[in-house]
Amino acid sequence: MKAGIIGASGYTGAELLRILYSHPEVEVTYVTAHTYAGQKVTDLYPHLHKYAGIKFRVFDPDEALSEAAFHFIALPHGEAMNVVPHLLEGGARIADLSADYRLSSQEVYTRWYGLEHTSAHLLAEAEYGLPEINGALIAEARLVAVPGCYPTASILALAPLAKAGLPGIDGAIVDAKSGISGAGRSLSLAAHFAQADGSVKPYNVGMHRHTPEMEEVLSSLSGGEKEVIFTPHLVPMSRGILATCYVRVGADASAAEIAGLYEAFYADCPFVVLLGDGSFPETKAVAGSNYCHIGWHLDEARGVVTVAAAIDNLVKGASGQAVQCMNLMQGWSEDTGLGALGIFP
Amino acid sequence: MKAGIIGASGYTGAELLRILYSHPEVEVTYVTAHTYAGQKVTDLYPHLHKYAGIKFRVFDPDEALSEAAFHFIALPHGEAMNVVPHLLEGGARIADLSADYRLSSQEVYTRWYGLEHTSAHLLAEAEYGLPEINGALIAEARLVAVPGCYPTASILALAPLAKAGLPGIDGAIVDAKSGISGAGRSLSLAAHFAQADGSVKPYNVGMHRHTPEMEEVLSSLSGGEKEVIFTPHLVPMSRGILATCYVRVGADASAAEIAGLYEAFYADCPFVVLLGDGSFPETKAVAGSNYCHIGWHLDEARGVVTVAAAIDNLVKGASGQAVQCMNLMQGWSEDTGLGALGIFP
Amino acid sequence: MKAGIIGASGYTGAELLRILYSHPEVEVTYVTAHTYAGQKVTDLYPHLHKYAGIKFRVFDPDEALSEAAFHFIALPHGEAMNVVPHLLEGGARIADLSADYRLSSQEVYTRWYGLEHTSAHLLAEAEYGLPEINGALIAEARLVAVPGCYPTASILALAPLAKAGLPGIDGAIVDAKSGISGAGRSLSLAAHFAQADGSVKPYNVGMHRHTPEMEEVLSSLSGGEKEVIFTPHLVPMSRGILATCYVRVGADASAAEIAGLYEAFYADCPFVVLLGDGSFPETKAVAGSNYCHIGWHLDEARGVVTVAAAIDNLVKGASGQAVQCMNLMQGWSEDTGLGALGIFP
Amino acid sequence: MKAGIIGASGYTGAELLRILYSHPEVEVTYVTAHTYAGQKVTDLYPHLHKYAGIKFRVFDPDEALSEAAFHFIALPHGEAMNVVPHLLEGGARIADLSADYRLSSQEVYTRWYGLEHTSAHLLAEAEYGLPEINGALIAEARLVAVPGCYPTASILALAPLAKAGLPGIDGAIVDAKSGISGAGRSLSLAAHFAQADGSVKPYNVGMHRHTPEMEEVLSSLSGGEKEVIFTPHLVPMSRGILATCYVRVGADASAAEIAGLYEAFYADCPFVVLLGDGSFPETKAVAGSNYCHIGWHLDEARGVVTVAAAIDNLVKGASGQAVQCMNLMQGWSEDTGLGALGIFP
Repeated sequence: MKAGIIGASGYTGAELLRILYSHPEVEVTYVTAHTYAGQKVTDLYPHLHKYAGIKFRVFDPDEALSEAAFHFIALPHGEAMNVVPHLLEGGARIADLSADYRLSSQEVYTRWYGLEHTSAHLLAEAEYGLPEINGALIAEARLVAVPGCYPTASILALAPLAKAGLPGIDGAIVDAKSGISGAGRSLSLAAHFAQADGSVKPYNVGMHRHTPEMEEVLSSLSGGEKEVIFTPHLVPMSRGILATCYVRVGADASAAEIAGLYEAFYADCPFVVLLGDGSFPETKAVAGSNYCHIGWHLDEARGVVTVAAAIDNLVKGASGQAVQCMNLMQGWSEDTGLGALGIFP
Repeated sequence: MKAGIIGASGYTGAELLRILYSHPEVEVTYVTAHTYAGQKVTDLYPHLHKYAGIKFRVFDPDEALSEAAFHFIALPHGEAMNVVPHLLEGGARIADLSADYRLSSQEVYTRWYGLEHTSAHLLAEAEYGLPEINGALIAEARLVAVPGCYPTASILALAPLAKAGLPGIDGAIVDAKSGISGAGRSLSLAAHFAQADGSVKPYNVGMHRHTPEMEEVLSSLSGGEKEVIFTPHLVPMSRGILATCYVRVGADASAAEIAGLYEAFYADCPFVVLLGDGSFPETKAVAGSNYCHIGWHLDEARGVVTVAAAIDNLVKGASGQAVQCMNLMQGWSEDTGLGALGIFP
Repeated sequence: MKAGIIGASGYTGAELLRILYSHPEVEVTYVTAHTYAGQKVTDLYPHLHKYAGIKFRVFDPDEALSEAAFHFIALPHGEAMNVVPHLLEGGARIADLSADYRLSSQEVYTRWYGLEHTSAHLLAEAEYGLPEINGALIAEARLVAVPGCYPTASILALAPLAKAGLPGIDGAIVDAKSGISGAGRSLSLAAHFAQADGSVKPYNVGMHRHTPEMEEVLSSLSGGEKEVIFTPHLVPMSRGILATCYVRVGADASAAEIAGLYEAFYADCPFVVLLGDGSFPETKAVAGSNYCHIGWHLDEARGVVTVAAAIDNLVKGASGQAVQCMNLMQGWSEDTGLGALGIFP
Repeated sequence: MKAGIIGASGYTGAELLRILYSHPEVEVTYVTAHTYAGQKVTDLYPHLHKYAGIKFRVFDPDEALSEAAFHFIALPHGEAMNVVPHLLEGGARIADLSADYRLSSQEVYTRWYGLEHTSAHLLAEAEYGLPEINGALIAEARLVAVPGCYPTASILALAPLAKAGLPGIDGAIVDAKSGISGAGRSLSLAAHFAQADGSVKPYNVGMHRHTPEMEEVLSSLSGGEKEVIFTPHLVPMSRGILATCYVRVGADASAAEIAGLYEAFYADCPFVVLLGDGSFPETKAVAGSNYCHIGWHLDEARGVVTVAAAIDNLVKGASGQAVQCMNLMQGWSEDTGLGALGIFP
């Protein structure tokens, strides 16, 4: 199948190129960028030397449709929504890595992103691209909204507890630690090496845009409105997210019961690895891979579950997950081209 | 004044040597180590070249008493308690950086550290060496138990809320991120570069020994038993601790009220820098310094305060704080020899 | 084909397991370790979760022969030579990642490694496993000595100049920078995070054991004894080696001539990527991959070529190269199972 | 004494503020910045909280002269030369951290920096601010050109050999490794965390602007024109430069002779620490300090000296050295306010 990557000069675009190079069913035939149009892919990314000779093109919707049947949109939020409708009308299937179609409510989108949505009619159609939650719907979709990196880790950590209806999901604490590539390839002081190296720092406390995304999915899983307290942190490493979550489960919960919830929920999920009670994940064990490692601990005396999930923010948190969604949409095995193990150490 | 450092070959010992080199009132005259006895300080620590020619000695209690009037104990827990009584009887004043005299209860010590206490009669006398909480008592003490690095950051973050009697202190979440030097100079797989680099990982979840220390102090401040949920993480940096804490304060709390609590509590504390509501600390801003930076955010809708404190684990979290205690015990200005600013970037 | 890994608990063993998991022709059936015998692979390496249930066994030569036809030896030098002869006699083919069979001279081995060689009769038979130099001989070999990580990068940087007989190869400077995983999984102060992080340091100056290995190959390529000045450095990153080499080529050399030497030499080498004159490699572009990136600059005024090669020390510098050798020995395409691109950023 | 910092928003400016806070003779009274004029120092640099309330001003030459008697110029090259003449005419003494007055030849400046010099008449008067080479002249100067970070480390490594007239200084190899703060606070892809972390890379090979600076000083020390081959590398750490240098000294040189050269040359230099033959420096041992650690090895068989010097690029390589020059210019002890030891680990 021929695939396009719209907005391929950023890190998620480069990661799509890397992953798809090893995908047995896909050939990337269309690669666009705005600032870097006309430049070679290898000028920006020497590691993609197998794409030697390929240049970033200027996006043209008709050219896109004629060149590829499936498109990955790796544009910033606010730009994706201007590209998606035309491609969809032209018959393409789409995995959109931006935030534009993740939320079901136009109002919530505008409140958190500060933009009017120009194709809000597609919000109802777009499926939330977290296969472990939503696999059947993704398989039928034309348009999939690939989740944000923080929501992927946080929801995977909390979903079994939410699904079980544990009341403590409301008000759950999500303390997340992200590698700096999460800030993208765009230059900023927060992502400047000398500022970020050797330092840990919370940011956007109480106002990070991934909050409503988590809340919507967790509410849907558990039934009824749920709120989370979400604090992201920057950690001096390139890749990886660790979401440490705290849920009050009360005095009745038993370790066996909690373990049972996780095992049942993820029984058929090839990319979720359960480490079990008392074993905790490290981000490096999933680096470069599409896996999510989850471990937890029930403090019976205090009635609190501490659960942590680790992913590679650029793979399971973005481009790998987009390919996983494409596999489902195409009817291929979910893990096609995604089987590589983490790079450790 | 002549000072000794008992157990000077570890990182807190080396940090004491570094700090005391610039202290106008102190001369280090007695330096011991076990494994490295007979070796030169500069063989282990080239940065301490001003101590060229000084060798680690074998600890001898009488020699210690004759060589120095004040002793810093930088031994592991379980060893300090075998050294302290003799020195105290000999008239020395002591800042003990181990855990041996931090807890008031012999039973709690044994439960968490797995050891019988051999000098439990001193637990009542030993003052907890957190000057921002306990300055007046430290000034009168013969024996000060310098707090652990995690409790220093966590208690400083939470103390104003505890003192105000906010009920949410019970069950507060403490999600702490530590640089790897917190593991000391002893070799371990967790502190092996290739394992720790590029990775974040929780450890000792629900069972870290600094938990009872936090709980005892917060209980004392607020009146009545308080529990905390404490999860430490290793972060790929050498120095620094960030403690991000979550406290439910209810719907009534106002931002002005929370700010007032912090400002009042730390009005006379030269080493606490309040960044204010909405401003959060980064560990690098305090690297190499004795300062603690604190910032917070009240989420009024959810009724939760997120507060974070950053310290250098080896300075304010250990050796600098020990010197600060010594200054108080000697009647010197609290910040003597401790005025250096953080090394940034 | 069934393969064994003897000494699989170290980083090169783990890396073999990671790579071979994606190899279409190989099944790993025999995995040994000494200290960790009886433990599960995933206890040490959570990223290898696809090997769940597999335990490290105690090495037994007859069991090894019955379980696998091809063996990777990932033991320390001095131990491999006690294992190889028996396996070879039993009909196995072997890629030995230790230093035991890399040098052709027993005397040189003893001088640099301080050991008597117990199977020196195999030195003549063992082929040096650098496929870009020695591919045809590797394809016929029973026993291949996989090169050290530093020699791989350094020889690939210098080979075209050596082959051309440029006299400046004698006395060439090799200034190499290695990630800390090069020190292996064994604990040491040099590989302790807090010591290595934020620091660059030369080590083993003038006496690193990879020196004779480079000299032997470069001498063989150029004809006549050649010496190099080799200085390794530790750099605060997990993976990667950059070898920056300096060769005096005299006033006559032209940029076109130098470029021609590199292009001709590596015309048929799928894992060498030439960046050209004025373009220099970065280690991260090859992280996790078997590629070697090479760039150079001829300073015409000074008559010096500066050439740098970057590899992943655990892949092209060890386990990937061992698999590349196996592919040749088995008559498979050289890049079978080794096509993954570098993980960047 | 009242001092000004012109261009204080960059890292060398911030480092001057940090160092001068502990200087007993100096008060910083005038602080300027262009982009950040009107902002508080602590908005950019929370670690400088002792400067709370101080704002960056717009540079005004008359105001500068009325506010301070000594000025540090921390502007980019090309801007300093527009500021210095007026301040000098107004009677100020100046330590200029830019490159504008380091070279003695206007033509060489233009060739390497691509700019016409607008105050070339001051080139002859400006003293090169490397106190270990030039202390007496600095003490008499009105205008000191503080050396670049790479030349400081490289010249200190090579000066004793150059002074001794060893012919191998001509053509010496300087392979230097720098932390990323050397790129300054200005954003760039090379200094973007996700690009720089986990990677080593040469840059500006054969064309770095610090080359003529090294050559001029080494030529002057040794008598006669000397050339060096200089290759800078970026290393994933915030601070530090290690310059590893290679000098052919011929078959006659003895270890005792080489050691004697270093000891004699640096006999009276408080900031140079000689580690001796066979002992090599690490950058972290000098982090945050004004010290330079030097170690070397004579390979007698090959007739080559490998010598390495480590400094903190922002202290001895910039702001600390500027303060050291100021101390000499003011007749104060050379190490006033500069005695802090390195921050390790």
